[in-house]
Amino acid sequence: MSDRLSINQATIKYADLPTALRVTADAGVEAIGLWREPVAELGLEESARRLADSGLRFSTYCRGGFFTVPKGPERRASLDDNRRAIDETAALAAAGAAGSTAVLVLVAGGLPSGSRDLVGARERVAEALSELSPHARAAGVTLAIEPLHPMYAADRAVISTLGQALDLAEPFAAEEVGVALDTFHVWWDPQLFAQIERAGASGRIATYQVCDWRAPLEADVLLSRHHPGEGVIDFEAITRAVAATGYDRDVEVEIFNQAVWDADPAAVVRRTAEAFDGAVAPHLG
Amino acid sequence: MSDRLSINQATIKYADLPTALRVTADAGVEAIGLWREPVAELGLEESARRLADSGLRFSTYCRGGFFTVPKGPERRASLDDNRRAIDETAALAAAGAAGSTAVLVLVAGGLPSGSRDLVGARERVAEALSELSPHARAAGVTLAIEPLHPMYAADRAVISTLGQALDLAEPFAAEEVGVALDTFHVWWDPQLFAQIERAGASGRIATYQVCDWRAPLEADVLLSRHHPGEGVIDFEAITRAVAATGYDRDVEVEIFNQAVWDADPAAVVRRTAEAFDGAVAPHLG
Repeated sequence: MSDRLSINQATIKYADLPTALRVTADAGVEAIGLWREPVAELGLEESARRLADSGLRFSTYCRGGFFTVPKGPERRASLDDNRRAIDETAALAAAGAAGSTAVLVLVAGGLPSGSRDLVGARERVAEALSELSPHARAAGVTLAIEPLHPMYAADRAVISTLGQALDLAEPFAAEEVGVALDTFHVWWDPQLFAQIERAGASGRIATYQVCDWRAPLEADVLLSRHHPGEGVIDFEAITRAVAATGYDRDVEVEIFNQAVWDADPAAVVRRTAEAFDGAVAPHLG
Repeated sequence: MSDRLSINQATIKYADLPTALRVTADAGVEAIGLWREPVAELGLEESARRLADSGLRFSTYCRGGFFTVPKGPERRASLDDNRRAIDETAALAAAGAAGSTAVLVLVAGGLPSGSRDLVGARERVAEALSELSPHARAAGVTLAIEPLHPMYAADRAVISTLGQALDLAEPFAAEEVGVALDTFHVWWDPQLFAQIERAGASGRIATYQVCDWRAPLEADVLLSRHHPGEGVIDFEAITRAVAATGYDRDVEVEIFNQAVWDADPAAVVRRTAEAFDGAVAPHLG
């Protein structure tokens, strides 16, 4: 089994944190990406202790962001919550095994309710990065802007392409602000390979995440993610391009899919490792 | 009522051609975009005669394309069918009232079954344009490449952005190959305004089509198009940008939406004209 695979906890969403750590380690997987909700459920200290005991590397923390709210108390509360997420990321990265990475994945947020001001919403994302980057630098955490597929631009993330995410990251040091490159969100982009090269050249690929796209989409488009190899994404070409930039971190599989969530988490981790070994690992170089 | 509105026939999909022409003209709308299937049902000559009798302008013909099939009999048949569509476009544009435009909208086609070669599929679109452009030039028809929303890249259209469509069009004269700019497909694009300006500067906006995006999407994402003003698209900004390029043709409303299709077509045309007058027409300059 590849030593580069990391199980993103969302793939086994219904498992609590102790279960997620156990089934991941038991399968021989070496790394995990965690989500805030299950960490909060167990408490940060206990979560860090359990992570340390598991012997797993920590690859990313999901997630911060939701930056498009206009100025006011709601925005201040959201930024404060992001500062807490940065601190949690640092604590968990310190608790993970050697090779852990302190990366907080940021989902930009959609248009505020009733708004059609896409340009303004995007400007607020840039402003939020300026406000948060000093805290991230002090904590040793990289903020990873995740471009989401354009079908989520209205209600989830106004950052829609890798090029746009890199434009946002560029004013900051690479160890402060990078990008989360998720195949599901970017595979269609005619500029993908040029932008992967650009991201690599500036050291901005904070995390590489893989899952597949299959048509037709599920009725809930949020739950349309599939195991690598089950859809149309060319993992060979994309993975080789990412590897060619020198990317040497863990690679997360993050799947939102009701059928996957309903299955036994230990079986899902084994299935995920098989899919990863078949479709992705051979191209990591 | 704006004299720039054109009813795309897909908005009243279940109306046959005589009914579509009648309800459109009766509402005081001056132009219509037609689809191949209802024209074929009535026959081209009879369709052209009815169109001439209606007094309506003809704005576009939908649709050609589906260019991603590999070399072989299926591809040759598809290209021959596109040549027939070009001829039909010319005949209908000649039958429409003064100010009609001979524009054939092209949907590129998705990945061939079982293929993950997105780059290759896109190359085949370019090759098809090279094969068809002499026929289009001879017929006086503009081929309008329509970038479709990236959520359709796998199964419907591998051309996903306005910039990509313009790259494809550029080797040809502007009156041979242009682009179809549909708000639903491009509203999210961070490069939209720069690319509209580029398209205008090279005279490539063959048709401007409007409909709205609303979240959450319908279970069938093909049927998620709404009347202008019902969703999140900033029609003021986009329409002003299109108008600023000098675009002076008709503007089509094209809606795929089961509830709209199930309604009385005369009522739908009236509703469409109201929506257009409210959200789009004031910004056409």
